[in-house]
Amino acid sequence: MQVTNKTALVVSAHSADFVWRAGGAIALYAKRGWRVCVTCLSFGERGESAKLWRQPGMTLEHVKQNRRGEAARAAELLGAEAVFFDAGDYPMRATDELLYQLVDLYRTLRPSFVLTHSLQDPYNFDHPLAAHLAQEARIVAQAHGHNPEQAVLGAPPVFLFEPHQPEQCNWKPQVLLGIDEVWEQKRRAFELMAAQEHLWEYYTRVALQRGVQASRNSDQKITYAEGYQRVFPQVTDGLS
Amino acid sequence: MQVTNKTALVVSAHSADFVWRAGGAIALYAKRGWRVCVTCLSFGERGESAKLWRQPGMTLEHVKQNRRGEAARAAELLGAEAVFFDAGDYPMRATDELLYQLVDLYRTLRPSFVLTHSLQDPYNFDHPLAAHLAQEARIVAQAHGHNPEQAVLGAPPVFLFEPHQPEQCNWKPQVLLGIDEVWEQKRRAFELMAAQEHLWEYYTRVALQRGVQASRNSDQKITYAEGYQRVFPQVTDGLS
Amino acid sequence: MQVTNKTALVVSAHSADFVWRAGGAIALYAKRGWRVCVTCLSFGERGESAKLWRQPGMTLEHVKQNRRGEAARAAELLGAEAVFFDAGDYPMRATDELLYQLVDLYRTLRPSFVLTHSLQDPYNFDHPLAAHLAQEARIVAQAHGHNPEQAVLGAPPVFLFEPHQPEQCNWKPQVLLGIDEVWEQKRRAFELMAAQEHLWEYYTRVALQRGVQASRNSDQKITYAEGYQRVFPQVTDGLS
Amino acid sequence: MQVTNKTALVVSAHSADFVWRAGGAIALYAKRGWRVCVTCLSFGERGESAKLWRQPGMTLEHVKQNRRGEAARAAELLGAEAVFFDAGDYPMRATDELLYQLVDLYRTLRPSFVLTHSLQDPYNFDHPLAAHLAQEARIVAQAHGHNPEQAVLGAPPVFLFEPHQPEQCNWKPQVLLGIDEVWEQKRRAFELMAAQEHLWEYYTRVALQRGVQASRNSDQKITYAEGYQRVFPQVTDGLS
Amino acid sequence: MQVTNKTALVVSAHSADFVWRAGGAIALYAKRGWRVCVTCLSFGERGESAKLWRQPGMTLEHVKQNRRGEAARAAELLGAEAVFFDAGDYPMRATDELLYQLVDLYRTLRPSFVLTHSLQDPYNFDHPLAAHLAQEARIVAQAHGHNPEQAVLGAPPVFLFEPHQPEQCNWKPQVLLGIDEVWEQKRRAFELMAAQEHLWEYYTRVALQRGVQASRNSDQKITYAEGYQRVFPQVTDGLS
Amino acid sequence: MQVTNKTALVVSAHSADFVWRAGGAIALYAKRGWRVCVTCLSFGERGESAKLWRQPGMTLEHVKQNRRGEAARAAELLGAEAVFFDAGDYPMRATDELLYQLVDLYRTLRPSFVLTHSLQDPYNFDHPLAAHLAQEARIVAQAHGHNPEQAVLGAPPVFLFEPHQPEQCNWKPQVLLGIDEVWEQKRRAFELMAAQEHLWEYYTRVALQRGVQASRNSDQKITYAEGYQRVFPQVTDGLS
Repeated sequence: MQVTNKTALVVSAHSADFVWRAGGAIALYAKRGWRVCVTCLSFGERGESAKLWRQPGMTLEHVKQNRRGEAARAAELLGAEAVFFDAGDYPMRATDELLYQLVDLYRTLRPSFVLTHSLQDPYNFDHPLAAHLAQEARIVAQAHGHNPEQAVLGAPPVFLFEPHQPEQCNWKPQVLLGIDEVWEQKRRAFELMAAQEHLWEYYTRVALQRGVQASRNSDQKITYAEGYQRVFPQVTDGLS
Repeated sequence: MQVTNKTALVVSAHSADFVWRAGGAIALYAKRGWRVCVTCLSFGERGESAKLWRQPGMTLEHVKQNRRGEAARAAELLGAEAVFFDAGDYPMRATDELLYQLVDLYRTLRPSFVLTHSLQDPYNFDHPLAAHLAQEARIVAQAHGHNPEQAVLGAPPVFLFEPHQPEQCNWKPQVLLGIDEVWEQKRRAFELMAAQEHLWEYYTRVALQRGVQASRNSDQKITYAEGYQRVFPQVTDGLS
Repeated sequence: MQVTNKTALVVSAHSADFVWRAGGAIALYAKRGWRVCVTCLSFGERGESAKLWRQPGMTLEHVKQNRRGEAARAAELLGAEAVFFDAGDYPMRATDELLYQLVDLYRTLRPSFVLTHSLQDPYNFDHPLAAHLAQEARIVAQAHGHNPEQAVLGAPPVFLFEPHQPEQCNWKPQVLLGIDEVWEQKRRAFELMAAQEHLWEYYTRVALQRGVQASRNSDQKITYAEGYQRVFPQVTDGLS
Repeated sequence: MQVTNKTALVVSAHSADFVWRAGGAIALYAKRGWRVCVTCLSFGERGESAKLWRQPGMTLEHVKQNRRGEAARAAELLGAEAVFFDAGDYPMRATDELLYQLVDLYRTLRPSFVLTHSLQDPYNFDHPLAAHLAQEARIVAQAHGHNPEQAVLGAPPVFLFEPHQPEQCNWKPQVLLGIDEVWEQKRRAFELMAAQEHLWEYYTRVALQRGVQASRNSDQKITYAEGYQRVFPQVTDGLS
Repeated sequence: MQVTNKTALVVSAHSADFVWRAGGAIALYAKRGWRVCVTCLSFGERGESAKLWRQPGMTLEHVKQNRRGEAARAAELLGAEAVFFDAGDYPMRATDELLYQLVDLYRTLRPSFVLTHSLQDPYNFDHPLAAHLAQEARIVAQAHGHNPEQAVLGAPPVFLFEPHQPEQCNWKPQVLLGIDEVWEQKRRAFELMAAQEHLWEYYTRVALQRGVQASRNSDQKITYAEGYQRVFPQVTDGLS
Repeated sequence: MQVTNKTALVVSAHSADFVWRAGGAIALYAKRGWRVCVTCLSFGERGESAKLWRQPGMTLEHVKQNRRGEAARAAELLGAEAVFFDAGDYPMRATDELLYQLVDLYRTLRPSFVLTHSLQDPYNFDHPLAAHLAQEARIVAQAHGHNPEQAVLGAPPVFLFEPHQPEQCNWKPQVLLGIDEVWEQKRRAFELMAAQEHLWEYYTRVALQRGVQASRNSDQKITYAEGYQRVFPQVTDGLS
């Protein structure tokens, strides 16, 4: 895996999560020439593919292939590369093998920032597990004694993207990222997710609401936005 | 009052608060050519001038003059202008007159950001009151029907500077601002505060601790920093 | 004021707040034959009438009249009666006179439930003040020694309707009320609020999002819903 | 296992927990003709049977039998059926096998609501683990790809019953359920728990305190009540 | 007012609050030879004297006298002195005059600790107001510039006694004080409160529950206890 | 292992953690004649030995030995005994074997109090895991059915020592322990930690800040202090 310039890492529990929740940030940074790597820990094959399972004769393998295809196409459309771990879902289980694969990815990519799920979600335990793994892998990648021949990771900030029912997850949008210039791309990525068509309008409305809020919290005119919560304090040379 | 370019507003309950807690941000922005206006709602004449009161024959008026002089010199050294409201302390009381003076200041200055106290402080009720006033004046300044002939205020972000015992105030540093380039200036401002000499070393250590933390949360080398908590979400075009 | 059967009380800070936030509950209960009384503490004449203030020659009195008319028509359309207190806005100030008027209203109406604003709102201090007044009046109305010749109030539950930026207000939807059967009415009430046209689509999307969430938290098909937070525990004879 | 009409599921870590904490709800719904299924993940044989262990020559097997007998009789008295998983206690460990047994139970019973422990308990780690399992099994039972030939579960609400030291567990009674009509039954179930006689009066007082509080939060006269916290928002067609 | 040795100050909103909530601590310290001063800001004449108001021909003045008598006798029985401020209730209003009277009391008594109400109470706004006053007066009493001829107050810890519905007030018992040796005295003080007979058993059960919890959190046998929350960190030379 | 008089137990994730965070309490109690047992779950060999790993040819075994030596000498200097579990770090994994070793230690030592890490730490997942183990072992040691031939443990209080970035860990100093009389010893223990020289000044400043705060929260003159958060309520016979 070749490393070029600036990179960002997205840790997504199921193969479509990154589209609804972080598609704007991904497209924005891809457009800026960054390498954006999206990891899909599972395909969401058991818990997030209801429409496929309603087809007669459906098999787990077929659902996975279908979901993998959709996610790969969405990542491509957004300008990112997708990595699939096939770690299972509902329930996802964290193995040390999976953890170390993520650690390797951190050390290879050396991302400038990381996007992942909220820390709590009473509707979906795979999401906080993915966030936990993303954090734990980051910590291990910082350890000098883990594969000491490799360079250790610095301290990339971690941003938690918006869960489906934000207040129930005790998630709070601390950062509002304007995504107007890539909105059409994000919406087109939605439309590649045939298995979850019921979410297209839902997440379009989320983007519009966060857009209004972004305008109200600034003196800018923003139509579409994404919300993020920070895990760590922002280190900055300016207050804005 | 003439308005030049970019401005920042600091709402400080007592005349020395801004030095310990926000002196770095003030000096940094003054150095960048901003107009920084520090409002001292009171002189801290009753509750934060213990050393002066230990002198025989001390009077309230003399304490006020002394504190005003110190604060004015500190503001000057940091590159800011100081405005004094003489609103009383221990306890401070919020009058609508004071509120409207602050509203006027907001509309005149049109600050790009605002610095004030934490929202809670069980040791000092004047501090959260100042924060409340800073917020309420900002809200009124945004109302089209308040002095409708004036232009309304936009939505400047508000940052809460560090209280004396941060955990007891449920204050959390969400932003760490590196202040190495102005540290010497901030320290010299400390030394103008003769009435509170016991705080010089305390706040030097605060700056060093926040500096270490700023380094740990980034890949930068930072020696001195100031911590701030946000009232509103950050609106941004980048994740860092 | 004649009392008929079951009643509900809505305490709204500004004259349009009840439409966006509680219009569905109001229409639903009116349709069920309840008397629903909406109190508008102010007209929102200074802070929530931007569009009117952009008209040349506008006066405070004219804004008030205009806003009063809109609110009265919206209340009528929803099946409620409106009471106006003209207590001022941006900033609203709570007087004991206003409090006692609300106490009288509680004792006259004897509402089965109360709707009001969220307990916090960093964008708008009039909202939590209205909620505070609604609560304080309820407490005083329960006191045997307040106008002891009147019957004391029981313990009507209080529900906090949704603020504009829910997560920033630390507000959480604990109750999702389906409003499909009155949605058209609520939307038409929106359209009477000419002064705040920019909110029509925003609150239509809020209703749709809460509707999706209501469906996800039940086995019902709900398109439009309103979210409420409880102040007090629910007393019930069934778990659902 | 035959399914009849409406059902409720109780997930109890140790074999007596359901008696103290949810015995009223169980008896109430059994009386209403519901099938109420109580799962006891362990017998509490190591950590909640102090009195038995004080008998000379006691063995783990004997404690388990004794506790199983008591719990079965209490369930019967309350009108419920008991299922025992013998998963061990102090510490309980969650296996995927146990999880999938619970998933099967969810899909077989299709409960209208679920009762389980609080999410935190610094005195007893088995309790939050049982709550976690109850939630995780519910989520897996909702997944279309888990045993796709079975019908998926809907979204039954989950209620958390009262822990032994509620404030220390950050548990809050959001729902107060009056249990006067079944109180005598609940008390008699207490008295079947010979191994924990010291709890009889404790939980009688809990029921009385919650009863007083239920009265204070309503206009009803309630003597005994049980408190519950909700995991999910209430979906409703009425505000009461 | 003569000062003798060690003292404690209790700030009670209504004239009976101190009996239910802090009667054990008061009796315990009185028994140890301390001077314990109980301030009753109001008589609870409007909001906490329902039984009296049910008597025909009752007047506000008569209720006050009755309540004053009860409180004075209860204080005496507990070994404390009572000071009455007659500041009104439901709603209580904080005046600066009342504040300064409390400041004087702090400076005269120089209490080693302070007991007052919880910081929140959605059922009773007089309680948090009393706590606010107790804290604000303490802060002003510490100010060197307030009556500079008097000695300033040190930093007595403040303990918040248990509200009626603790979880609803976000109050948490951080300190459990065993009161077995004075329990009979506390109970007899209850029985002097004829106007609130319905509370005798309620607060007896509170004492028993806190007693069980005190035993569970220690290796002591404690039957009756009182719970307190701290406002400030404990400064200590030992960990226990 | 012989038991003498009073004992305290410290559960430290990595072999140096106890020095920075609890060295004062350890030295204080050792000086008072207590047996203080420090358990180092790992040596911090992978994640907290950066300086050693920068030496050429360094091996994991060598790092462990080096860290073990430093920790043993620091424990000795402070008057404590050190027990090493070599459980691995970055990531640490909790096995039941490790848990039961801790349970045995609890039952052998019968500590009067326990010190361990904060419950959360987004920078270091080994720390909360150590705290979890310390708590879980304590719970199992209290179970009558765990090795029923042994005497069960009572209820020793657990204190959480200060994490590196306290606010980010949601840790709050509820107890401030003055350590002036052992400060020189604690500082000398710092200086034995050659691998983490960058922390010497950081934790000296922590001790000074907590010292100032201890003075401000009491009427004592304290220069150095340590902060602790409680897991359980304090059971006491006095309020101070």
